[in-house]
Parts: sequence; C-alpha cells; structure tokens
Amino acid sequence: MNATARSVRTKANDIADYMRKRGQRARAAARVIACAETGTKNAALFALAEAIVDERDAILEANAQDMREARNNKLDDALVERLELNPKRIAAMADGVRQVASLPDPVGEISNMKMRPSGIQVGQMRVPLGVVGIIYESRPNVTADAAALCLKSGNAAILRGGSEALRANLAIARCLDRALVGAGLPKDAVQILDITDRRAVTEMVAMPEYVDVIIPRGGKGLVSAVSEAARVPVIKHLDGICHVYVEATADLDKAIAVCVNAKTQRYGTCNTMETLLVDAAIAERLLPQLAKTYSEAGVELRGCERTRKLLPDAKAATEEDWRTEYLAPILAVRIVDGIDAAIDHIETYGSHHTDSIVTENFTLARRFLREVDSSSVMVNASTRFADGYEYGLGAEVGISTDKFHARGPVGLEGLTSLKWVVMGDGSVR
Amino acid sequence: MNATARSVRTKANDIADYMRKRGQRARAAARVIACAETGTKNAALFALAEAIVDERDAILEANAQDMREARNNKLDDALVERLELNPKRIAAMADGVRQVASLPDPVGEISNMKMRPSGIQVGQMRVPLGVVGIIYESRPNVTADAAALCLKSGNAAILRGGSEALRANLAIARCLDRALVGAGLPKDAVQILDITDRRAVTEMVAMPEYVDVIIPRGGKGLVSAVSEAARVPVIKHLDGICHVYVEATADLDKAIAVCVNAKTQRYGTCNTMETLLVDAAIAERLLPQLAKTYSEAGVELRGCERTRKLLPDAKAATEEDWRTEYLAPILAVRIVDGIDAAIDHIETYGSHHTDSIVTENFTLARRFLREVDSSSVMVNASTRFADGYEYGLGAEVGISTDKFHARGPVGLEGLTSLKWVVMGDGSVR
Repeated sequence: MNATARSVRTKANDIADYMRKRGQRARAAARVIACAETGTKNAALFALAEAIVDERDAILEANAQDMREARNNKLDDALVERLELNPKRIAAMADGVRQVASLPDPVGEISNMKMRPSGIQVGQMRVPLGVVGIIYESRPNVTADAAALCLKSGNAAILRGGSEALRANLAIARCLDRALVGAGLPKDAVQILDITDRRAVTEMVAMPEYVDVIIPRGGKGLVSAVSEAARVPVIKHLDGICHVYVEATADLDKAIAVCVNAKTQRYGTCNTMETLLVDAAIAERLLPQLAKTYSEAGVELRGCERTRKLLPDAKAATEEDWRTEYLAPILAVRIVDGIDAAIDHIETYGSHHTDSIVTENFTLARRFLREVDSSSVMVNASTRFADGYEYGLGAEVGISTDKFHARGPVGLEGLTSLKWVVMGDGSVR
Repeated sequence: MNATARSVRTKANDIADYMRKRGQRARAAARVIACAETGTKNAALFALAEAIVDERDAILEANAQDMREARNNKLDDALVERLELNPKRIAAMADGVRQVASLPDPVGEISNMKMRPSGIQVGQMRVPLGVVGIIYESRPNVTADAAALCLKSGNAAILRGGSEALRANLAIARCLDRALVGAGLPKDAVQILDITDRRAVTEMVAMPEYVDVIIPRGGKGLVSAVSEAARVPVIKHLDGICHVYVEATADLDKAIAVCVNAKTQRYGTCNTMETLLVDAAIAERLLPQLAKTYSEAGVELRGCERTRKLLPDAKAATEEDWRTEYLAPILAVRIVDGIDAAIDHIETYGSHHTDSIVTENFTLARRFLREVDSSSVMVNASTRFADGYEYGLGAEVGISTDKFHARGPVGLEGLTSLKWVVMGDGSVR
C-alpha cells in the first residue's frame, strides 16, 4: 500500500468513526425525546422560530457566502435559485416551525383498547420511529422544516444538507441548539452534519444500530444512490407521472378547471399532471377548447393518433412519452375508450403517485378510487393537491412512492409507528 | 469457461427467468385480487378449508413421504417433529382458514375523510401491499395460514416452503388452486413454488418490480440470510429477549402467576420471558417462593450477585446472560433498584420484542408503557400474550421486531397500507 492509499483509508475510517459517534449520540437522545412532554417539544419549537427571526441577519450573511461560492463553482442556476434565502423566506421558515408546534402531538396516542376473552385489554400506542436520517440538497429551509417535524414526532434526527448550503445550515443549527437547550432537551436530538464528504452519507445509511429510517429529499440521482447503499429502511420518492382521466360524463367546466390547474399551476412539481387521458365520448367537446388554453399558457401537446385528428397541431406522442415525467410545459394526451382502458393505461405507464378522474358518475368514481393503485387517488380535483399542507398534515418531510409503511405525503404520523399495549390483572395464558 | 461452469451459469439464468415469470404472474393477479369483493375472497377461503378436509388423505400421504425422506436424510428430530401432520393438525389447518374468512375485510376501508379549507375532502383508504413473498421452513400448516391471510388482505402471494415439506405443500397447493378457480379468482393469486434451489430465494427477494414485501418465517439464520440479500422491504423477526419487571408495589400473587406463566408455559417461543427483573424492595418476599416453583418446573436460574444472596442455589449470571434468548428452561434474574434501572436494563439488553411490568402503581404503569420501546409493552400480564390470536388479529403472518411499517404480531392489517383519497367538485389550487 502506498502512502496515498493509506491516507485515504485512514480518512475513510475517520469518517466511519465520526458517523458512528454521531449515531450513538442520536440514539441516546432519541430515548429522551421519545418521552418528552408535548409542552416541552412545543416550547423548543417556538424558541426555534424565535431564534430564526433573531438570527435573521447572520443566516442571510451565511447564505450570501454560500451563494457566492456556488456561483464561483459555476453551479447551475436552478440550484443557486433554490439556495437563496431572503427576509421573506426566513419569516416563512419561522412560520413553518410555529405551524408544526401547533399540530396535535401524535406520540403517545392510544387507540382501540379492546377487551379480549382471556381477560387482557389490547390496543396500540403511537410511538416515534427512533432516529431519522434526512439527506437533502440545496434549500436551507428543509433544515428547519425537517428538524421541526422530527422533534414534534419525538424522533431524534441527523440532517445532512448539501455542501453548497453548509454555512446557512450551520447558522440554522445554532438556532436549533439554543432552542433545544433552552427547553431542557438534549442538543443531540437534532444534529446537523458539518461534514461534506460523500462517504458520510454512505456510512449514515448503513448504521441500522443507530438510524431507523432514511429520507432522501432531492432528485432521482440522490434517491437512487441512497437506496442502493442503504441498510436501513428508506422512505423513497421516485417519479411523479400523474394522470387526469376525463370520463364521458364529466362536467365540462370542472374538467377544464382541473386539467388546466393540474398542468399549469406549476410545471416542476411531482404532482403535476404529465398525461391527460380523455374518454372518446367527450374528446370532441373537451379537447379543442382545452388545447386553446394550453396553447395560451405555452404548453406543448403530444397526442396519440386519435388526439391528433382533433388537434392537428399536436406533436405525435411516442411510447416513451407515456413513461415520461416532463417537469416542463409539455403534456401527453391520449384518447381512451372507457374507464378500463384508462385504468389500464395508468397502471401500465404511471408511477403510482397521484391520479385523478373527472366524472359525474358515482359508480365510476368509486371504481377509480378503489382500483387505481396510487398513493393519492382523486375525483374531480387537481393532482396538485397531493401535498402535506393541502392534506392538513401541516408540513411534509417527503412524499413516499413506496407502498410499505407510508404512502404519499409523509407528515408527523409517517414518522411514527404503532406498538402494542396490553393491560391485565395478573393475566396468564 | 469450461462446460460445467457454463451449465451452472445457464441454470442460474433459468432460475432467474423462472422466478421473474412467477413474479410477473403474481403482479398481474395482484391487480385482480386487490379489487376482489369480500364475498368472493371469503368463498375462496371456505372452499380452501373444505378442500383441505376433502384431500386429507392425500395431504397425509404426501407428508408421510416427506417425513420418510427427512428421516433418511437424517434431519434433526425437532425439524422432523415440526414437519409432521396428522388428522388433528389438518382439521386445525382448515379451522384456521375458516377463522380468517370470518375476520372483517381490511381492504377498502375509508377513514378520516376531512373537509379542507380548499374545498377538497381528504382521507385514507386501506389497500393491499401488492405481492407478498413468504419464505418459511418445515411446518406445512404455514402454507394454508399464509395463503389465507394474503388472500383475505387482497395481496397476491408467492410462498416458498422448505424443501423438506415440498410434497405436503404441493398437496395443499392443489387445494388452493381448486378453491381459487372455484371462486373465479386467478390461480396465480397464490403461487406455491415447486423449486427447491436456494437461488430461487435469492432471486425472489431481489425483484422489487414484482414483489412488494418479503416475510421470512424461521430461525435467525433464515431471517438474516434473507435480509442480507433483500432488495425489497422485509418484515423481520429477530430475537425475543423478553423481560418481566416485578415492581416494588406489585401484588405478590399476580407477580408469581405472571412470572411462572411467562417462563414455563412454553420454553421455545419468542415471547417467553428470558430475564426477570425484580425490584430490591420486593425481592426477599418474591424470589424464594418463585424459585421453588421454578425448581419444580425444572427451570435453571442464573442470578446477579444480589439474587444469589437470596437464592444461593442459582448459578452466577454473566453479562452474556442478559443478552441471551435461551429458548430453554433457563432464566436470568437480576435485582434492580427502581423503575429507571429496570427500563435501563431493558433498553440496554432487550430486543424490543415484549416486556411486562407487574405493579399496582398507576403512574409507574403509565411510565413503563410509554418509555419501554418494545413492540409489545404490558402491565400485569404474561409476555406469552404477544401473539396474533391473543390480540384478536385472527392469525399472524409473522411477528415484526422492526419499528418500520408494523411492530409485533402482523395480521391482516400489517399486510395493508393506506393510500390517500381526495374528493372535490372541480377543485383546483
């Protein structure tokens, strides 16, 4: 082994040691935070919001340095844009934390305590998962958001933001420390990593003794890399290939409102419609009118053959289009015959994220809700509603496209699970 | 590459192909079974119970051949014992299937439909996980049990039993086919693998496109091997190092009843007490009396130093004893000072399976339930109650020692998750 190889190896060991120590501290803090009273957790959250407001200038200064370095490093504009903080965004960050404080505490809730013939009484108690690892990119507001959600749900957290946002994240970390210590909670309950080496992530996702779940928040590359390396459960968010199916009996006005909103309200979000399915029976009435609105909004249409007979200006859609998450002002359009064909299309090409039917028919609405296997299924509503705030979760720590544990927006409840509680009176089998 | 290597390689490809085809068929059947009506699923289950009774002689004959081969192969006695079927066990198998039929259908239940300020109404629907892979050893009754639970919860299943039970499993498979086809459900909804090559398992746990969750049922070796190779979520059952803590205010009669039952009712089960923690304030009154009963039952005691002052016949417990799942008539005993020391011991040495406190103190009972991070926490009840039947789940497909998704006994509900349901009236953001 030459000197360089040796030094690299030592460094890898150092990182492993460092991460394991972080993990041990998180595990110890998790026991305390899991049993912390609701009032104590809320006090820490309100103190965090206050500290963020107090430290606004320091956070902005740190962010300005991050931005300068990002520009010097020629990071792409979209990333730099996501990085930027301003007084309004900082106020929103503090507001978000206060909102989490005002949510009901999910931890400790006991449900379904039933008497059993044996004499015992059995039910379930909602409890934290333990230690949550969150790996994210750029946006520094995720730091405050994620910390607040983990704290409120009684979990310890290890947060690993992008290296491009390190200074702002560490400024927020100082607010967190102050808030935790002020409320009498262990500082280690939320740890923000100051190590930017990628191997820290590889370590972190492979310590089941210390980390109970990993949530990657970022692009597909990040999510796949984390999932590949993970030795602990991962709450994954992969593609959002969302559909709206306008059924034959749809109300035309509702259909247009939903279709326009689902595509044009924002283009880059995972709950944006990417493919529109139109029932043949309503296509002639709907599509020309809809195409006009899309054209005004600058949305490019890619249609199946039948669509292009009605909309000669639309490009021809290929098989690939049905599988594409554009995240852009492009929409694939397909004419289908009936609900079975629509559901078949969604199950074949969709990503099980969010799908909506527009219909006035009760039975078909019920069928769609039941048969479409997506994390959110909707009737007469825009796919854009698939979001923690809109669902009343307060905030979301991510959106799961998995079927295991939690589906769709993951809020406080998604960061908990249920243990069994048994009460007896000296009961034996 | 020489000829042998080539042939082995071809064989591995064959197995991969074979398993992927099985997976595709399961995925297709999952769509059908997920939406099957409750009455249809129940009809299939009652038909399965009937077929098992009808085919009793054929199943017994297949089992007799399995047993002969197992003995010829010098498999160990415990394994051969678990393999054995008899008319009583077959009747119990059919009864188990009928019990699952009589449980409420968890699928399709909609809960918490709340109105949101935006005008949408949001709630959750319970849905199957999709395709469940179950890998188990010897006991052929698991085949009927697991098939029934997956079917009722709307999941497709791929069952892979031990090669030693192949003939009996295939005889049960024929009953299943008859029942499914008779009810108009796809045969592929429950597939029982007839391939005994271990590589089939390695394939099966690494097909996230076709399998949504893997449940290994068997010894630690099986569970670890499956977890290591898995690329899909695994519902794991690892150690059951269960504790009873007899607190100072405990009622002596209840304490004795619980301690004796938790240890001696059965030795080889995961919910058997392995370590007894006794509060110093009650040790003198409890331990000598308890030791007598244990001694009569043939239970060997291994005590801490303080225990051995009260029970001079007890062996000395080592650090290793606190971490051991004996699955045998051996019990570790430790005297502790107060609930904090008891909880510390449980959190340090326990396996987060099942732990019980015996106490008359309300506040300490509440603390124990809240602070002990185990899948089942109990007050004044024997740890032996930690079981799907006892909890009213009807049957269990396994016991999870994980914190993610499901903890403790996993019944029908553990084989489902919740998707979001949104209803609007042309609602947009």
